[in-house]
Amino acid sequence: MRATDIIIKKRDKQTLSQEEINFFVQGFTRGEIPDYQVAAWAMAVLLNGMTAEETTHLTLAMANSGDVLDLSDAVEIAVDKHSTGGVGDKVTLVAEPVVAACGLPVGKMSGRGLGFSGGTLDKMESIPGYRTNLSTEEFLAQLKRSGLVLTGQSGDLAPADGKLYSLRDVTGTVPSTPLIASSVMSKKIAGGAQAIVLDVKIGLGAFMENVEKARELAELMVSIGRLSGRKVVGLLSDMNQPLGHAVGNALEVREAIETLRGGGPEDFREHCLVVAAHMLVAGKKAANLDEAREVASAALADGRAWAKFRELVINQGGDVGFVDEPDRLPLAPVVVEIRAERSGWLAQVHARIVGETSVELGAGRARKEDAIDYGVGILVHRKVGDYLEAGSPIFTVYAANDASAQRAVARLKESLAWNSEETQPLPLFYGVVE
Amino acid sequence: MRATDIIIKKRDKQTLSQEEINFFVQGFTRGEIPDYQVAAWAMAVLLNGMTAEETTHLTLAMANSGDVLDLSDAVEIAVDKHSTGGVGDKVTLVAEPVVAACGLPVGKMSGRGLGFSGGTLDKMESIPGYRTNLSTEEFLAQLKRSGLVLTGQSGDLAPADGKLYSLRDVTGTVPSTPLIASSVMSKKIAGGAQAIVLDVKIGLGAFMENVEKARELAELMVSIGRLSGRKVVGLLSDMNQPLGHAVGNALEVREAIETLRGGGPEDFREHCLVVAAHMLVAGKKAANLDEAREVASAALADGRAWAKFRELVINQGGDVGFVDEPDRLPLAPVVVEIRAERSGWLAQVHARIVGETSVELGAGRARKEDAIDYGVGILVHRKVGDYLEAGSPIFTVYAANDASAQRAVARLKESLAWNSEETQPLPLFYGVVE
Repeated sequence: MRATDIIIKKRDKQTLSQEEINFFVQGFTRGEIPDYQVAAWAMAVLLNGMTAEETTHLTLAMANSGDVLDLSDAVEIAVDKHSTGGVGDKVTLVAEPVVAACGLPVGKMSGRGLGFSGGTLDKMESIPGYRTNLSTEEFLAQLKRSGLVLTGQSGDLAPADGKLYSLRDVTGTVPSTPLIASSVMSKKIAGGAQAIVLDVKIGLGAFMENVEKARELAELMVSIGRLSGRKVVGLLSDMNQPLGHAVGNALEVREAIETLRGGGPEDFREHCLVVAAHMLVAGKKAANLDEAREVASAALADGRAWAKFRELVINQGGDVGFVDEPDRLPLAPVVVEIRAERSGWLAQVHARIVGETSVELGAGRARKEDAIDYGVGILVHRKVGDYLEAGSPIFTVYAANDASAQRAVARLKESLAWNSEETQPLPLFYGVVE
Repeated sequence: MRATDIIIKKRDKQTLSQEEINFFVQGFTRGEIPDYQVAAWAMAVLLNGMTAEETTHLTLAMANSGDVLDLSDAVEIAVDKHSTGGVGDKVTLVAEPVVAACGLPVGKMSGRGLGFSGGTLDKMESIPGYRTNLSTEEFLAQLKRSGLVLTGQSGDLAPADGKLYSLRDVTGTVPSTPLIASSVMSKKIAGGAQAIVLDVKIGLGAFMENVEKARELAELMVSIGRLSGRKVVGLLSDMNQPLGHAVGNALEVREAIETLRGGGPEDFREHCLVVAAHMLVAGKKAANLDEAREVASAALADGRAWAKFRELVINQGGDVGFVDEPDRLPLAPVVVEIRAERSGWLAQVHARIVGETSVELGAGRARKEDAIDYGVGILVHRKVGDYLEAGSPIFTVYAANDASAQRAVARLKESLAWNSEETQPLPLFYGVVE
């Protein structure tokens, strides 16, 4: 078998066999197939597509390219969640403690921020002392003992995906539905997941801007699940405006804590309950969504989810004093409020602009090696569909200095659009694929 | 400007600007744009195409990536020819001496064999002493003094094309009309050509198997010529069966010598005269094709072309005794004749099979570093459309040993197809594009 022939086959719109895909993935993982052949192949895949079967072969080949975790000793059904990335998306911080509090152990390996989209690890690291580098042994032991883990990737999971992703990033081959689906699914499968709830974000602040493309991605991931013997549910959710109010690491942790303590923004709380309910059904801790929703709401209402979050922080070395008194979490010194310059209905709060502004304030990284400022960020006080009087507050900016605050203010004003007539709020979800 | 954005633009079927193409070509020539980005871009070009303008920008950027020869001191109009490659294609060995004998100086840089297709340099090197590594100074001096040069590439011509071609070869991106056209044209333009006669081969023994694709390639090259101020003529010629009788280096030199001395196979002689006539018109040594044809025939008939060939061999260090007595040229020791196993009309002599058999006998290289056996090859005695009695000779095989002769015999039998009814001969040409 020759790598060139596999490229040619895909170039000519033919279907690759499992054997061919395994050969190719093993070859590039071992460095036997050079990057330029992988790049040409990736472009051919992007332009000519792959069937669900091919994508499943690719997913499993990448999942099996390194360590594969076996969680069966710690969990009956290993359920994971994955968000395709958005702005103000701190769902994991609430949904996972809720699920764990309901008796379904969840061990999650999260990622860092990417572009305008925040990352769960960065958020959790705004809690002093919190460790995100657990070893595989620590991961498994904590999952078994406490039923909740939230850390970075341990072990050498799906190294083929890592290599392919780096290459896609510099060869214009990121926006390929089969390549995105296999990337997500391979990491989840290598991490031991048997059931996966996917939160596929759609809109101005998501990598997918329209519902059709997102549905296609969700359907492909559900097919990969079916063909590989895993249960997959895809939620199609709105990301035109930020989720909840807080955007920025410590600000988002505060909002998650408020929510776990029974408060928090309505849209965010609702989103967390929907995700948690799907996870509970997938993990067979509830017979149906209604029952799951009830169980999850109870765990949030009676403080069990909050207790689970505190336990998580303590288990991973975080200083629980900071979550008990969230005012002690880092907060940037320069605070500027932005007020409505007119009256009317809010028609847009452009999530990507808000996300990019947060990154520019220092909440994310322009380059991999940049340090993060945990205390900066933005509070978004109002939602699309709200009626505002001129002069009422829309944003609060938390910045490291005046100059960056002023840049943020100018940028955030561009995120807004207004209507003179009554405007519908945005939906939270556009559908469920399973 | 970023290489990734240029890849993305082509991926999204947009048209690249001259500035973008120059940036990309200069970047990869200098090694600043890595191979994996070039490979992804090449696949996007193959699948999404390029306009004639883009292809012209690419051609000129590659032509200008290294040395560019200026032949104006030696020739009024620098005319070159190029064949896309075939089996038994020794046209250069006859057409160029004819043209030079008619007073149009031609300095040609040829290539080596590629796959089943023979190379002019390999053929000429079967003449002991013949040098194909002239320096640029030697090339120019000989062109000025004698009006005929036939050597390998001198100087650093179109290094971008060399780099891109090597990469295309291993990334499944060879069969792209814009990439083929710009590769050919960039080398010719860097070599100083102002007018180019292209011999675009079509059929079983060519890289293009159908007339439509070949016409498309020829039209694109004519457009590149127009857009870059060069005259280009594209001949669409048959390569379903080998050209002439001889396939193999010294065998082909013998056949060229026979033709220059007034004999030779009819189809081959005719092909050479057509190519020479187009070159003479392009070089303004004849007002039209009819006149050019007359002039060329005369130069062949009265021995001037033959004298020019002898002069070429002497000028480049070859032992002219071997061309004066071609029986002294290398000839393999094992000679086997293949005879018709039935009576009937010959319907096919599969040129690629004949070409591959010749390579397997040792006339070409399986790998770059392989040595060539100049004396091996095949004589193809009959043409498609001929009626043969059972037992009449079709092929003579010249092999280094019995084992390789027997393999060649078995293989060559597969090249034949027969008809029980009268069968039309194949045309020599399918058309002219200009």
